[in-house]
Amino acid sequence: MSALTIAVERWNELSAEQQSARLARPEQSRSAQLKQSVSDILAQVREGGDDAVLKLTRQFDDANASQLLMTAQQRQALIAALTPKVKAAIDTAYATIRRFHQQQRPRDLKVETAPGVVCESRYVALQSVGLYIPGGTATLPSTALMLGVPAQIAGCQRKVLVTPPAKDGSIPAAIAYVAELCEIDDILLCGGAQAIAALAYGTESVEPVDKIFGPGNAFVTEAKQQVSQDQSGVAIDMPAGPSELLVIADDSASPAFVAADLLSQAEHGADSQVILLTPSESLAAQVREQLLQQCAQLSRQHIAAQALTNSRLLVTDSLQQALTLSERYAPEHLSLQFNDAREALPQLTRAGSVFVGHYTPESGGDYATGTNHVLPTYGYARNYSSLGLTDFYRRYTVQEASREGLQGLADAITTLAELEGLDAHARAVTIRTEVNS
Amino acid sequence: MSALTIAVERWNELSAEQQSARLARPEQSRSAQLKQSVSDILAQVREGGDDAVLKLTRQFDDANASQLLMTAQQRQALIAALTPKVKAAIDTAYATIRRFHQQQRPRDLKVETAPGVVCESRYVALQSVGLYIPGGTATLPSTALMLGVPAQIAGCQRKVLVTPPAKDGSIPAAIAYVAELCEIDDILLCGGAQAIAALAYGTESVEPVDKIFGPGNAFVTEAKQQVSQDQSGVAIDMPAGPSELLVIADDSASPAFVAADLLSQAEHGADSQVILLTPSESLAAQVREQLLQQCAQLSRQHIAAQALTNSRLLVTDSLQQALTLSERYAPEHLSLQFNDAREALPQLTRAGSVFVGHYTPESGGDYATGTNHVLPTYGYARNYSSLGLTDFYRRYTVQEASREGLQGLADAITTLAELEGLDAHARAVTIRTEVNS
Repeated sequence: MSALTIAVERWNELSAEQQSARLARPEQSRSAQLKQSVSDILAQVREGGDDAVLKLTRQFDDANASQLLMTAQQRQALIAALTPKVKAAIDTAYATIRRFHQQQRPRDLKVETAPGVVCESRYVALQSVGLYIPGGTATLPSTALMLGVPAQIAGCQRKVLVTPPAKDGSIPAAIAYVAELCEIDDILLCGGAQAIAALAYGTESVEPVDKIFGPGNAFVTEAKQQVSQDQSGVAIDMPAGPSELLVIADDSASPAFVAADLLSQAEHGADSQVILLTPSESLAAQVREQLLQQCAQLSRQHIAAQALTNSRLLVTDSLQQALTLSERYAPEHLSLQFNDAREALPQLTRAGSVFVGHYTPESGGDYATGTNHVLPTYGYARNYSSLGLTDFYRRYTVQEASREGLQGLADAITTLAELEGLDAHARAVTIRTEVNS
Repeated sequence: MSALTIAVERWNELSAEQQSARLARPEQSRSAQLKQSVSDILAQVREGGDDAVLKLTRQFDDANASQLLMTAQQRQALIAALTPKVKAAIDTAYATIRRFHQQQRPRDLKVETAPGVVCESRYVALQSVGLYIPGGTATLPSTALMLGVPAQIAGCQRKVLVTPPAKDGSIPAAIAYVAELCEIDDILLCGGAQAIAALAYGTESVEPVDKIFGPGNAFVTEAKQQVSQDQSGVAIDMPAGPSELLVIADDSASPAFVAADLLSQAEHGADSQVILLTPSESLAAQVREQLLQQCAQLSRQHIAAQALTNSRLLVTDSLQQALTLSERYAPEHLSLQFNDAREALPQLTRAGSVFVGHYTPESGGDYATGTNHVLPTYGYARNYSSLGLTDFYRRYTVQEASREGLQGLADAITTLAELEGLDAHARAVTIRTEVNS
């Protein structure tokens, strides 16, 4: 930890170039080599099915992989081993997430757009969805909740969860329990690009799904991108990047709270990025002290310390400047630790999820406030939505015209069709309106 | 036209392999050469800005391209030349499209998920959008309406329309008029991959946009795919493919109406696909006759005739089998020409847009019923939505907990955080709930 140095810098004293550098994201590797490796894995699974997935799982996860599909007995055995405390925690999170997401049900719409012409917008749940739950350095039953709950509420007919097995071939009991709560149909014991390939192309054990959800490492992200480019291919939720948190705070904030939040994001991964924007130089200095102190107490302190090297403590000339810079950065998570923060919300629309006030830590949203923790990151909070219930539906339109209704629009349609040089489009109208019927 | 042969086939007499072939989409070229050409164009514009776009426009569109940005004077001069008849047609279409889309305004949501914990889902219009209007074989003011109207209703701050100029450097007056109605800020006189690059990366004349909408040829589609893969890149509306129509009809249908609809889709492009599913062998035979007769009268008969070679007239053993096959095919446009067709709607959810009954030609939806004609095609009607108003917004979440609210969730959060091995996540809660404040 001795090497951990975190600078406090004044924004207005930085050159334009330095300012851009401070708000730049850490470089993500999407090397030609990674692309090729993923493309090879996809091809192997497409060709070899279950056997290829199992072989890759033994190779990459060093796991005792002899079956792809978890049996109902195995699922129940895992659940039976779960402690009441963990069960209760999952039940609480399940309830809040469910409460928030079930209010998001999209509404069908029917509008008479012209006399005798009715147009409808209708929503239908996606038939089959694949939910990717990362393994690796942390087991994430919370992600299973974030994907499983909306899939369940939407009523997707088939819900397949994939997650990489541990060396002994098993998965965390908490994930099995979440799968049960969310009525997941199948659990596939695989992760990485091979799991994405299984969901996209199908194998003997699994039919291809319509859409793949969930975060993952560079292999998973690249695999999702590649399968989503296939002609007539599977849909994906959103592009993924490393996690990030931007805190805006003033002298009313607790330096210890702010530092704890920054560290909770930093411990996610070495490529996480955390930023403090504050008009208070003294707060910045105190947060810096707290970061050094608190980081030393973490079990994942080495990861957090690495992430802190991508991180910034920036002193702005005003709270307003901090708000403006946040919009420029467009953070995944935005924490507002100043009084009357709610009044600033109309100015802060470029974020995946906003945490208002001194008692709303970002980790609350990771687990149990009820919001979804699958969020656009890496600058995508300017143009992608946070995951919500409607992402588990598709929307389509229906229209019906009476003969009189069509007659009323006939001039407009035929004029435009002729203007566009599309005779048959015009003819499809006149053939109906000019006959006696 | 002498070479035009269209077979009527009975579905149940086809082998499984033949059945798959009949419902297969025409192959889309996404050759390595196309990818490389597009990638080169993107790089040229990224480097050369306006000059590169103008050079490429002269090269590919053979157009007199000396300026990228249309001036207000040029826009007004074009509009002044428009006939009252065309203006009236555009006004009618604008009104119906507006009526349907303005009812689609997404609603913000606020839910108390636990005592003292409030979660919100909020929508905000995308700040800047790029609208691609194809040129080429047909000029498409209708597409300008389909993209411009929702962008205007959503209230996107900056709306940029791009469309390839004709040889004389101008664009259709109707597009200029639509741009005026929809309060388009800028019209860029360029098309193809170079226009997508200008929108994605910006040039001297245009700032990069947040999301690009609209259909286009293979170059445009490939360019949209490539720019959407950039790290922190622009978003796109949906993957595109050739247009398609599936008609389900029975003996109550008019063979002339059905044929007119199939031809209206076929004239879009040689790679369009049209399919008739009917339990009536006599209807199929009459539609076939009508296709041959009507096709000969079209100005775009060569395009339509080519498209008809990808097309199918299939006799099913029942109306129900036709419905089932439509779900398997997942058409962009689905036309239901049988009595009481509305009763079949619950079974028909895999389509971009559905046209109900004998007096709702597909071309009505292309222009003026009010629905959007930008739709998922090429099988994407199983997993992508039809374009709607909400595609011009992004959704994000907000949460706020009181100290008591956080206290109530503290056990759940810390238990899950510890289970996931994320100490700092737990600490961000306990540091708040364990102090006296």
